[in-house]
Amino acid sequence: PPPAVMEHSRRFMPFSKRVNHCVNPVAKKLLEIIEEKKTNLCVSADVTTTKELLELAEKVGPEICVLKTHMDIIKDFSGETACMLVGLAMKHNFLLLEDRKFADIGNTVKMQYTSGKFFISSWADLVTVHTISGPGVLQALKEAAFDANKPRGCVIIGELSSAGNLITADYSSASMVLAAEHFDFVSGFVSQNSLSSRPGLIHFTPGVSLGCNGDNLGQQYSDPDHVVTQRGSDVIIVGRGIIMDANPGEAARKYKEAAWAAYEKRLLAAVPNK
Amino acid sequence: PPPAVMEHSRRFMPFSKRVNHCVNPVAKKLLEIIEEKKTNLCVSADVTTTKELLELAEKVGPEICVLKTHMDIIKDFSGETACMLVGLAMKHNFLLLEDRKFADIGNTVKMQYTSGKFFISSWADLVTVHTISGPGVLQALKEAAFDANKPRGCVIIGELSSAGNLITADYSSASMVLAAEHFDFVSGFVSQNSLSSRPGLIHFTPGVSLGCNGDNLGQQYSDPDHVVTQRGSDVIIVGRGIIMDANPGEAARKYKEAAWAAYEKRLLAAVPNK
Repeated sequence: PPPAVMEHSRRFMPFSKRVNHCVNPVAKKLLEIIEEKKTNLCVSADVTTTKELLELAEKVGPEICVLKTHMDIIKDFSGETACMLVGLAMKHNFLLLEDRKFADIGNTVKMQYTSGKFFISSWADLVTVHTISGPGVLQALKEAAFDANKPRGCVIIGELSSAGNLITADYSSASMVLAAEHFDFVSGFVSQNSLSSRPGLIHFTPGVSLGCNGDNLGQQYSDPDHVVTQRGSDVIIVGRGIIMDANPGEAARKYKEAAWAAYEKRLLAAVPNK
Repeated sequence: PPPAVMEHSRRFMPFSKRVNHCVNPVAKKLLEIIEEKKTNLCVSADVTTTKELLELAEKVGPEICVLKTHMDIIKDFSGETACMLVGLAMKHNFLLLEDRKFADIGNTVKMQYTSGKFFISSWADLVTVHTISGPGVLQALKEAAFDANKPRGCVIIGELSSAGNLITADYSSASMVLAAEHFDFVSGFVSQNSLSSRPGLIHFTPGVSLGCNGDNLGQQYSDPDHVVTQRGSDVIIVGRGIIMDANPGEAARKYKEAAWAAYEKRLLAAVPNK
């Protein structure tokens, strides 16, 4: 392909060069971490106590760029939980993504993001959001993030990995249109395929496993090489494949290496004559 | 219209006769409460402390059939919050609807519903759910509700009231198909229009106000008469119009009367020769 195309194509540009294309500051920071730690692995911390969460973060911390949380499933969550986790994120240099999947109207989402039990905007670098309720939700989160006065970003659910999900190509396209209004706040997408060629946007892909095809509640899995090289994912999200392993740190290292090898393979595929 | 059609049409059948058409036990209980208290008003308790929540429930309790909550915006939520609220629900005979808008895959939603900070399945008669992630989410909630061993139901987000939302007619139809697989667990829909003529399914409509057209984050309002008579809503959901009133109990009574009058008008419209 001609150099001009290559230069602006997300999939075939190294993370290090994509840094300068980010409009959202958290996306930029994330690409820097990915490049520095040579890891495009996000671990999904689907555990149910503060102790398990912090232990997991300590173990997988060195191997990951992002820790994805569901704070509402932590039975004993308190301000201390968030505080300690932020400490570990600083120690091991990773970002925190609260997988809240905001899906209400703007006014409600704003309260859920900034206050209540979880005061998410005060500790989470990133949050996931469904665009289903329309542009008001992004507007509301962005306003709230501005009030928090810290670098904040959102990751839009552009596609889902679960069987029979109702997200259509039209829905994904409509999400992209909404995202384009807020590139200063949108860090990227949760997706199964490449939804944008913009180098400043990061594609996160859940449903990744090295040895499992699905669960009994509709989740479907693919392996890291496939999602990175074939489907254009930047960051793979791994949950049960790591957290249910007897040695989560070691399992995370395996996934990290597989995902990074796939990323390097993708870059090579882009420059066949080099 | 011929009697056979009338008999099975949700919109033109009195609540009292619809009771026998319910497959889900919570839908049945709700119709009984509506008939007994002569109220099809649901108040949306968008307050941020336990004290405000319990005071509101005490004030509007006699006027409502359902109290809709967002427990994650209650700063000081604890087991006691839920416990006290259940007590008020029993005292004033209304149901609790946690407006969680579940929007994740089955495995995650199951944990969010049954455990974590809110153990929702232990106190909420009803929960709202987006079908966006596919059939797994209804299957997961239903299994979890079965484990809770209490009458439980879900309300599917079939349509939204916010400007520019991404729910299409196809999406709503797909939701109906998923609902049909779980009529034992589906109590009804959150909708803006009539999505089903089944008398056993209850239509809840948010975005209702007696004197306001919208907010600055995309919410849009209609008045009670319009949503009940024209759009086929069974239960109107009112938030800011009541909770921000200086006298929420009195405001609730006004909305209750308006919604009930609209319901009676709708029934009359169905039998022009009577």
